[in-house]
Amino acid sequence: MGLLVIGASAAGLSAATNARRIDPSLPVTVLEKSEAVSLGLCGLPYFVEGRVPAWAHLLAKPRAYFDGMGIRIRTCATVTAIQHARRRVTLAGGEEVAYEKLIYAAGAIAAPGPADAFSLSTLDGAMRLRRRLEESRPGRAWIAGGGYIGLEAAEALRARGWSVAIHHAGSYLLDREDPWLTGRLVAQLERHRVTVRLGERLEAVPAGDLLLWAGGLRPNCGLAVEAGVEIGRSGAIVVDEAMATNLPSLFAAGDCVETTHRVTGRPVWVPLGTTANKTGRVAGANAAGRRERFTGIAGTSIVRVCGLGAAATGLSEAQARREGFDAVSAVIDATDRAPYFRARPVSVQLVADRRSRRVLGGAVLGEYGVEGRVNVIATAVSARMDVEEFAGLDLAYAPPFAPVWDPLLVAARQLLKLLH
Amino acid sequence: MGLLVIGASAAGLSAATNARRIDPSLPVTVLEKSEAVSLGLCGLPYFVEGRVPAWAHLLAKPRAYFDGMGIRIRTCATVTAIQHARRRVTLAGGEEVAYEKLIYAAGAIAAPGPADAFSLSTLDGAMRLRRRLEESRPGRAWIAGGGYIGLEAAEALRARGWSVAIHHAGSYLLDREDPWLTGRLVAQLERHRVTVRLGERLEAVPAGDLLLWAGGLRPNCGLAVEAGVEIGRSGAIVVDEAMATNLPSLFAAGDCVETTHRVTGRPVWVPLGTTANKTGRVAGANAAGRRERFTGIAGTSIVRVCGLGAAATGLSEAQARREGFDAVSAVIDATDRAPYFRARPVSVQLVADRRSRRVLGGAVLGEYGVEGRVNVIATAVSARMDVEEFAGLDLAYAPPFAPVWDPLLVAARQLLKLLH
Repeated sequence: MGLLVIGASAAGLSAATNARRIDPSLPVTVLEKSEAVSLGLCGLPYFVEGRVPAWAHLLAKPRAYFDGMGIRIRTCATVTAIQHARRRVTLAGGEEVAYEKLIYAAGAIAAPGPADAFSLSTLDGAMRLRRRLEESRPGRAWIAGGGYIGLEAAEALRARGWSVAIHHAGSYLLDREDPWLTGRLVAQLERHRVTVRLGERLEAVPAGDLLLWAGGLRPNCGLAVEAGVEIGRSGAIVVDEAMATNLPSLFAAGDCVETTHRVTGRPVWVPLGTTANKTGRVAGANAAGRRERFTGIAGTSIVRVCGLGAAATGLSEAQARREGFDAVSAVIDATDRAPYFRARPVSVQLVADRRSRRVLGGAVLGEYGVEGRVNVIATAVSARMDVEEFAGLDLAYAPPFAPVWDPLLVAARQLLKLLH
Repeated sequence: MGLLVIGASAAGLSAATNARRIDPSLPVTVLEKSEAVSLGLCGLPYFVEGRVPAWAHLLAKPRAYFDGMGIRIRTCATVTAIQHARRRVTLAGGEEVAYEKLIYAAGAIAAPGPADAFSLSTLDGAMRLRRRLEESRPGRAWIAGGGYIGLEAAEALRARGWSVAIHHAGSYLLDREDPWLTGRLVAQLERHRVTVRLGERLEAVPAGDLLLWAGGLRPNCGLAVEAGVEIGRSGAIVVDEAMATNLPSLFAAGDCVETTHRVTGRPVWVPLGTTANKTGRVAGANAAGRRERFTGIAGTSIVRVCGLGAAATGLSEAQARREGFDAVSAVIDATDRAPYFRARPVSVQLVADRRSRRVLGGAVLGEYGVEGRVNVIATAVSARMDVEEFAGLDLAYAPPFAPVWDPLLVAARQLLKLLH
């Protein structure tokens, strides 16, 4: 009885630990279909590259941590059905596990590629790819998909000496409708001798070449759907601010749920580790009887592309227009520090709404300090700050850290000119 | 006639260029008592260290830039009196210069130390110190003052092999009433074999030792006071949001003016390059007939202390209490990135008001990403964000840049516990 959690990755384990923290008397069981518990999938590209020597380094917490919290974790436990009316799940093999409350945190799954394709969406896939890289001499690699996994994989393969081509079916990299950002990323990839083809689906690769399948991620909702859980237009599970689904005592969290975008107020599906951790915590708290709420995302993401930090948050100009804003954007190129402290180029894009003058989003590219600058934009977006306020922000300056006019402020002033 | 600016440093030149940009027909003259135009004083410690080879590298803009903008700059032009009723200033030597509008940007000056003391508050002082360091073998150096110049000087002198002792008359380093921050900075300095004495005034040093005077900065208001300009309780010039003084057609900007602290709403005197640039721009715009306003500071500052970034913004807990807030603070120690990307320790302090739950300020210490994290706090402070909103911020995560729970969010959650 007690709380049952399906999935022992970021969301499920955040839920389990937070529930136990709030109610130490609550029995908590976690069912995980694989052998890995608390595995940080975000590190797989760096495991493949070799920077992470062994996959055990990717475990966010050791198994003993969960044992110590009194959480029972069963690995290799595949749920085949949820009979929520009876408050039971069925495992492969027929065993039934009873519960009072259920948290569904089954994550996302990648559409399977061709039979011989490699994948980075599971530990098994990453181990298979790493063995291949270690066993053969560098050759030609083809990556199907220009999302963050595809771009991180390109960096890892280049680091191992492979020649790399990315084919992306869509028009924009990183799932962001932003020609400027895509253009800059293509230039960066090509500078590192990665070929990029946009709007092209990869059908087959020459014999002997390596094919990495890095697209087609979707929420893993099958069992929840069969149990009667409501699914949104994005294909992910609909939850309220408490991470409760339409069924009583059934919560969901992580890469299988929709969240609310703070700029548009609309449901979106953005599977990311940060959100999985946060929604998991909130689901666990509410399942344990404490009221907590998850108030949505700003759409912040960051990825390293052959040494360049690329980050975005909020809406791009094109997205903002489609959402009905009178969007305008400014892009500036600057340097990130004083010249005598290894100054490097940094580019900032800032998007605003002409009517309300609100900051709607932006993007940052550079080698240093990219996460800090995009986080300032994300904070301003969440606070519904207008461009004038943003341009007046009192940001830190000293020669080792930033120029006296931070590139963020230069971009904001540029944007103010367009708003006048 | 036209616009006259006193001072060719950050504020004065920002004012002059912005005024010309807005009204290209406006005659603009800048009077500067030294020979240096557009010198970035913030770089002087790095000039002394030797990282900046020649002082010319510290010029923010070449002289030709201002010539190209049609700004007349007169160096070695010392103003001895402002006769504002007649709209004239008198120069040393007797010459009078007429104007219609005046911007007073005379900066700050350091109280003179003992006759043989060195100083970093002027270019001449820095050049004299560098010569001494280059001509003699490393010995013992004593620094009077634990503000940011004193701490930067300590790093520069250690880098040149000197043994260093800092004596600071006050109880807190960096002018921030914060025992935690001071304690951490003392530990960092001592780890780099810099002796720190708090609450001790330096009276004399042994013969042959080097004495660096790094305290007693005050606004350079003498001429303005004689002309009838109103001075605030801080000792600096009182200005409104347009940087106008109490006298018509007389503006002031930079290190000689008071600004409004955004948390307390009260006037403060915080001489920093960022604020000098911003207030200069605003003064220039208003002098040229366009309405712009400067809305105050959050009290953000950053300094490198023997390799450690130390930044603060808003109010410390002790300052907040004195301002009447029911202040509470949380401090957390974390790491700044994934372990396989050179993770280093980072510490975050976050201060809030129990009644309103508003974020009032904070501080960040670390080797990497300190400016970005303090800027997020500064943005939240300016937006009057509450701690719950702050804890829900959608901050960027990928292994090369941050941990999945950013230290800022860990600190905010810690603070939430204290608020419940």
